This record gives sequence, C-alpha cells and structure tokens, in this order.
Amino acid sequence: MVERRNTIPILSNVMLRAENGELALTATDMDLEIVETVPAEVTQAGSTTAPAHTLYDIVRKLPDGSQVELDSSGDNGLLTLRSGRSNFKLGCLPTEDFPQMSGGELAHQFSLSAADLRMLVDRTRFAISTEETRYYLNGIYLHATRSRAGETEVPVLRAVATDGHRLARVEIPLPEGAGNIPGVIVPRKTVMEIRKLIDEAGDRISVALSETKVRFGFDTVMVTSKLIDGTFPDYERVIPTGNDKVLEVDSKVFASAVDRVATISTEKSRAVKLSIDRGNLVLSATSPEAGSATEELEVSYDSSPLEIGFNSRYLLDITQQIEGDGARFTMADAASPTIVRDVADPSALYVLMPMRV
Amino acid sequence: MVERRNTIPILSNVMLRAENGELALTATDMDLEIVETVPAEVTQAGSTTAPAHTLYDIVRKLPDGSQVELDSSGDNGLLTLRSGRSNFKLGCLPTEDFPQMSGGELAHQFSLSAADLRMLVDRTRFAISTEETRYYLNGIYLHATRSRAGETEVPVLRAVATDGHRLARVEIPLPEGAGNIPGVIVPRKTVMEIRKLIDEAGDRISVALSETKVRFGFDTVMVTSKLIDGTFPDYERVIPTGNDKVLEVDSKVFASAVDRVATISTEKSRAVKLSIDRGNLVLSATSPEAGSATEELEVSYDSSPLEIGFNSRYLLDITQQIEGDGARFTMADAASPTIVRDVADPSALYVLMPMRV
Repeated sequence: MVERRNTIPILSNVMLRAENGELALTATDMDLEIVETVPAEVTQAGSTTAPAHTLYDIVRKLPDGSQVELDSSGDNGLLTLRSGRSNFKLGCLPTEDFPQMSGGELAHQFSLSAADLRMLVDRTRFAISTEETRYYLNGIYLHATRSRAGETEVPVLRAVATDGHRLARVEIPLPEGAGNIPGVIVPRKTVMEIRKLIDEAGDRISVALSETKVRFGFDTVMVTSKLIDGTFPDYERVIPTGNDKVLEVDSKVFASAVDRVATISTEKSRAVKLSIDRGNLVLSATSPEAGSATEELEVSYDSSPLEIGFNSRYLLDITQQIEGDGARFTMADAASPTIVRDVADPSALYVLMPMRV
Repeated sequence: MVERRNTIPILSNVMLRAENGELALTATDMDLEIVETVPAEVTQAGSTTAPAHTLYDIVRKLPDGSQVELDSSGDNGLLTLRSGRSNFKLGCLPTEDFPQMSGGELAHQFSLSAADLRMLVDRTRFAISTEETRYYLNGIYLHATRSRAGETEVPVLRAVATDGHRLARVEIPLPEGAGNIPGVIVPRKTVMEIRKLIDEAGDRISVALSETKVRFGFDTVMVTSKLIDGTFPDYERVIPTGNDKVLEVDSKVFASAVDRVATISTEKSRAVKLSIDRGNLVLSATSPEAGSATEELEVSYDSSPLEIGFNSRYLLDITQQIEGDGARFTMADAASPTIVRDVADPSALYVLMPMRV
C-alpha cells in the first residue's frame, strides 16, 4: 500500500519494531495503517523506519528461505541488513516521526467468516463511485438492519455501494455483537487492501468499529482505517418495488453474449440493447465506425415486449457476481431502474439504471 | 502487429482473401507484412479488408471451436460474420487500397532450424540500439562469414547487434544456400514479430533474402520485411584481442547477486562495482538516497586486483543468455571493453563497456 513516490518522505518508509520475539512492520498513508507481525529472534528490542520498497526489493531477491538479520544499533543512523554474504546499509528516519493511528479500543467488536467478508466485498465493490465530489459514495456502506425474508424479518449485516448508475446490496446474518454498530462508510482503498488479505486469511476475521475508525484483524495482519465522514444516501428509495416484467436468463450464456455484442458498441457509451419478447431476447449494438452486432438467446419472459438499453460493462460486472445459473431481471420500462438478482441466492440485490439506445 | 490507432485508416484493417480452400489474412504497416493462411470452406472466392482489432475481439470471445462464416458478397460494402446465433456487420475498405509488398522471388534462399533462429535472436536482440539517430543499429546484422575455431576457420551465419555500450555476436554453422547472401540489417520490429512466431513454428524455418527485403516462412505464416537501408559498422574492431585478466563465475549465482546489490544503485546509472582479487569478488553499489550494498562471491581469478564498474542491467541481460554454469569475463582494465563468454558454448560472444564507479 506504500506509494513509490510520496510528498511526505517518512510515508515511503515502513516502521520496524522488534520486541518479545516478534517483529512488527507498519505502513501508513495516515488514513490507512497496516501492521504485520512475524516471529523473530530479538537479541535487542528496538525500532526504526526504513524505505519500504527498497526493503521489499531486497527481501524478494534473496533465495527462498533465507534468514535475514536486521541491526539498527549502530550510531550511524543506518539500518544494516545481512543475509548470507549480502550486506545492505539503508538510510533510516526516526520512529518518533512516523505517524501512527492512535490505538485504543474501538467500541463495537464482532467477527465474521472470511467467506462472508469476501462476499460482502466482491458483490459490492464494483459499484463504488470514483467521483471525488460525491465522497460519501467512495466506499462501501456497512450497517446493521432488518431484512424481509418471506413473512418474517431477520437481522442482517448489510453492505451497499452505488455510483448513481448502479447499486449493489448484499447481506449476511447479523454477526453476534454487531447489533448496535453505527452505519459506516469504509473507503475504497481500505476495501481493496482488505480484499487482498482475505485470501490468505484464516477462517475468522475480527472487526472493531467506532464512529470514525474500523479495524480488521487477520491472523497476523491488522488493518486500521479512518471512515468516510459523510452520510450515505437513503438507498432503499432507489430500489423500485413495482417492477412487473420478469426476465430470466442463464447468467453465463447471457454474459458471453453481452461481451461479444459489446465488441461493436462505442467505447464511450458501451451500450447494448435488449429486445425482449415471449421466450426470446435479442442483444444488439451499433456504432457509426465499427458496424453492428446482434445475438439471439432463448430466455424465460412472459410479459409484453420491451426494448431496454444498458451499459454492457455494468451488466457484466453484475452477472459475474451471480454464481448460480440463473439471473432474474425485474423491469418496469425502458426508462426506469431494473432489479437484477441471483435466482438461487436471495442475499444479493442489484439495481441498474437503463440507458437510452 | 496492427496498431490500435493508425493515421492511415486501412492499416488498421486486415485483408481477407478466400480462394482454393484457404483464407489468407494479411496485416501490414508498409515496412512489415504478415500473411497467415488457414484452411477454409470457400463457397465463393473473394477478398475484402476489415478492422483487425474488432475482428480479433469478436473471434476471441466466441466459444472455443466455433465455426465462423464470413460473407462480403452483399452490395452494402459490409462484411457479415456469423457464428452460432451471433451476427456481426463490419465496415470494410476495398482490397485495391490495401498496401501490399510486391511479392516476387528473393534471390537468396536457405533454411535453418527453429532452435538456431531462436538462439540468434535471443542472444542478440537485447543489444539492439533504440536511438533513432543511429538507425543502422536499430536491428540485427545478419551475414555470412568465416569464424576461427581453434586452428581452422569454419563458415558461419552470424547475427550481431550493438548499441555502443554492449555488443552481442552469435553464430551458427552456415546453412546450405546462405554462402553468398548480402549482409542485411533486420529491423527491431521484425525481429520481435518473428520471435513470437518461432515458438509456434515447426522444425524448419525458411529464409529468403534480397538487398532490400527479407522473408521468413513458418508453417502457415509468412513474414516479409523491408531491411534497414544503412551500413552496419565494422564491429570486429571493437572486440578487444589483448585482454588478459580472466574471471570465471557461476552465472546463476553471479546474476542473483548482481540483481540484489543493484537494488541500491541509482535508477539512472544502475552501476555496480566489481572488486576482484585472487579467488574473490566483491559486488557493491551505493546511492546517496538509498544507502549501500555489498555481496561477496568465491570466483576463479588469478590476475592482479582490479576494480571495474558495469551497468547492472547490461550484466543481467548477458548472464541471462548464458545457459551453462560458467561465465568467463576477459578484462584489460577499468576503462576498456570487457569480453563475456559462456564457458560451455563458444558460439556467442558479448562485449561490454565498463562504467566509471
């Protein structure tokens, strides 16, 4: 997560702290802090900060399984790294200057499975807005709420992201201890960093929250992040309830056809048109330069004929998250938001704004 | 090889020519032409040109093993592509406007093995100059000559490339028919394209040459290229003959150590210093920002102590081409060109200019 170029030099460094048989490595950009702890033979406790990328380059170039010795005890202000017959001396900056997010307890604590966190992240992150002016949409909104399941309501932990063109809403059964959490917006960069860590994580991931901070605890890695200081919009208002035209497609077949037809759509709009009639869907795209494309699919559809356009990129983002065979589109008309769901999995819901085609 | 953006629109197109049970696809940038022939069921012979990248995108998105039908017989000037239930109409440009390199026989013809051509290319291409002002160094110089092998001279086909900082010279026994070829300079772009094709090629590759053109024939692909119209310098003059200090290293061990130590060298110079004494080599690098690095290796060296600097990138380029365990450096002093050879393979010779360190 450390950028190669940094206007504040010490942010290019990683803090190394050795004590009690462990070496803790800390990187920060002042909004997001990652601490990894590894076992180490500590002959003298101490700490320093050294250039993150140089350290990383050296270590990855050493033979697999190499032992590395770090020594900052010299009075020259250098960190000495020895391994085999290699010897490096690196410029350091003092630990006192390294910005640290105040530790401290965060009020709310719960844990969830790696699989659940992965699902919450994967099924929403593509919809995070990148428009900086709408900073309150630049993350995933995580909150506790109640979800209708048939006749009853069940408590859930819900993740929502939207960029105004599409919205993704995913939920899992409410983890113990998460009942009273505040609704928080986890920034995109934090989302991307924790996503990378999930795959190497153990079974359970701990989460601690306050109004301003979140901390994710993996086996040996702790990620602490500021939250986005803003109000997430009332997303339930944009989820239509009266849509009555139901289209069901094989999601893999549909996605490949969209991808092919979109070859022809202009790079700017990426529009594809869906012409839907009983049992039949024709996908089409045209562009003044490239030509035209059509592809026909057998589908399940019983309502009156409909022509509706979508951004093909957005259609693919959503259908890629549908693991079952069937995707269900619930539509009103060519100008109103469409709902997309996994036929086999009620935990996720997507809303997609159509395009004029 | 077709660029996505082209100032001459038809160069973005591929020419399709169907006849006699074959479809020939031709791409060109007017200096380099590639023709690939595939079997096809031709119901009506004909030709057209269509956008190369759009065609490629469509075909790669079709399911594996799909049959594709092409039809340009309509009077609308469009190419229709059908496959399964997909249907594409692509804008075309007339075949007459497509620039073709005049075919015709090239005077000299010979063939060589794919392994030999791969070796000639791989062991020289990294040394090709990218300086446009020295256009006559922007390719590989291919020529027939005689090479000393102990007491005798043997006829060889030789490839040479240099950018003034390093030189690579590789040879293979002279193929039958190549005795009287002119010395030619094959341009970098052509070298890179044929390199990609070698791995999929059959055993033998045919070469045809004139003073201005070269043609490489692979199984189903024909590459025709203009040659660089210039005079390659008398490279033998820069290969020193009196160097007497001989250093032998394990090339893998040496390369990893150079790579590690170079982590510290400045991005601009990439310099590493070799401090050589009887049986011992110390590699070192320093940079005002990053610090310093040293690594010690056991080597074979019996001459007087020497300190000499090299660009680490250039050292790695050469040692990566040495397949045997041993690399032999033959040096004169810290300011004169050094010769590097594979101890186990006399067919390649490299010359490397030192750097001041």
